Amino acid sequence: MVPSICKQSNKTGLTCFMWSAGCCLPPSLLLMESWKLLLAVLGSTLHGQAFSSLLETGISIWWTPVTYSEVEFLKPTLQCDCSASYIGFHAVFLSTGREQASLTGQRLALLASEGNNFSCIINSSLTRFTETADIISKNLPDIKMCSSSLLHEGPPTQPVPAESKWIPDLSYFKDGPRIEAAFRKYIHRADPEQTKDSYEIKVCHDNVIRYFVCRALKLPPEAWLRLSLYHGSITKLVIKPDGDVSLKMLGDAGFMPPGKLTRA
Amino acid sequence: MVPSICKQSNKTGLTCFMWSAGCCLPPSLLLMESWKLLLAVLGSTLHGQAFSSLLETGISIWWTPVTYSEVEFLKPTLQCDCSASYIGFHAVFLSTGREQASLTGQRLALLASEGNNFSCIINSSLTRFTETADIISKNLPDIKMCSSSLLHEGPPTQPVPAESKWIPDLSYFKDGPRIEAAFRKYIHRADPEQTKDSYEIKVCHDNVIRYFVCRALKLPPEAWLRLSLYHGSITKLVIKPDGDVSLKMLGDAGFMPPGKLTRA
Repeated sequence: MVPSICKQSNKTGLTCFMWSAGCCLPPSLLLMESWKLLLAVLGSTLHGQAFSSLLETGISIWWTPVTYSEVEFLKPTLQCDCSASYIGFHAVFLSTGREQASLTGQRLALLASEGNNFSCIINSSLTRFTETADIISKNLPDIKMCSSSLLHEGPPTQPVPAESKWIPDLSYFKDGPRIEAAFRKYIHRADPEQTKDSYEIKVCHDNVIRYFVCRALKLPPEAWLRLSLYHGSITKLVIKPDGDVSLKMLGDAGFMPPGKLTRA
Repeated sequence: MVPSICKQSNKTGLTCFMWSAGCCLPPSLLLMESWKLLLAVLGSTLHGQAFSSLLETGISIWWTPVTYSEVEFLKPTLQCDCSASYIGFHAVFLSTGREQASLTGQRLALLASEGNNFSCIINSSLTRFTETADIISKNLPDIKMCSSSLLHEGPPTQPVPAESKWIPDLSYFKDGPRIEAAFRKYIHRADPEQTKDSYEIKVCHDNVIRYFVCRALKLPPEAWLRLSLYHGSITKLVIKPDGDVSLKMLGDAGFMPPGKLTRA
């Protein structure tokens, strides 16, 4: 079992950072966006199989529609072995949420000053994640921003051991393929034409990050619930040019005073 | 595959913290301590099988002898569901090593003030780990300290993917059973008589912590090299009363300025 993911190049990689929290869209938003489901299903070729089987179930409500966001890679001039790092965050807007986001932004700015040249922030398109990304971006001027509903929260797969609260099988059936599609879209080796390491920030949900970590490390995906993240914590994955993956930190929140530490 | 480890009680657990770095004993020390190998082999009943097979190989040099250290548990009066947390650190005494240890100590003191009532520090008995534990203990007065050579560095098992540098099979054969014995000795549920959560600190090596994390989470042990730790970083495992295990953070070093971050 070799943790090599995707097959793009032997020379280049990609570095990216992530965020997370947990929620569902309010029903009004879901109804508003349900038309996008059809668009996504009809327009999808890459993930057609997953979407088709979802369509057969007749489920449109609770489905989070697909939008395609661009990932920005650095394209400099010097050819070299490049890695790809992904950093994720787990954020929530309770009373201390904005303060947590601000502390995370400051920490990322410090990391940027030490060579993590972040190229973009990709956030879950839910309101509080957009807000988190906005707070982060204040500390990282000139960074490209985009959002994706592929990164919305959901149960990625039946966990082992089982969750203490009951989750209907339907949720796994709907959200699992979407989160897997998000993994394939956002966690991969660097562009073959890339000539320097790239660093990306993803602001997304707890379960999504935990699933990404298991999948990227080629560990059993059903182990995702054995990992736990603080709100606003930083998780860093590095994808090397040969496809090897390294988890550099998980749930790093050491930059927050202990009194500000919360988790779902 | 259910991540329940050991079978002690359904009501109590244990919480403990760890540290790490990588090294070998200097040859002079190894020769001095080689007599302890025989003592360890003869005196061991719990891990007799592992030690016997080691003895059959006739290897005494490079073997790190066994000492038995006590683990201190809190034994208060109120019966409750208790968890066990283990925190580990990855430390090295290069130019910034003592400064890293001091920062980690300060962070642990902050965590202690927020309810992590650390009962003891168990460190690898190598010199720089003893020194690290001493620096930590300055921030945690009245904490019990002990050391163990079971926690010495070594390659725990053949990693997948393979290490870039060649390591003789002999090393895995010698160190693997010792590190597995350390896991069984130090990572388990709380004492059945325990009535409050307990928190332990372990100051030990990079590979040891990575292996402990994989084993505790019931993930393939050969995945240990896919995890990576900063020097002086904090890794936290919680063992719940029912035997479920949760990784709360891995390689947390957010309390250090980015300029102080190093890894092996």
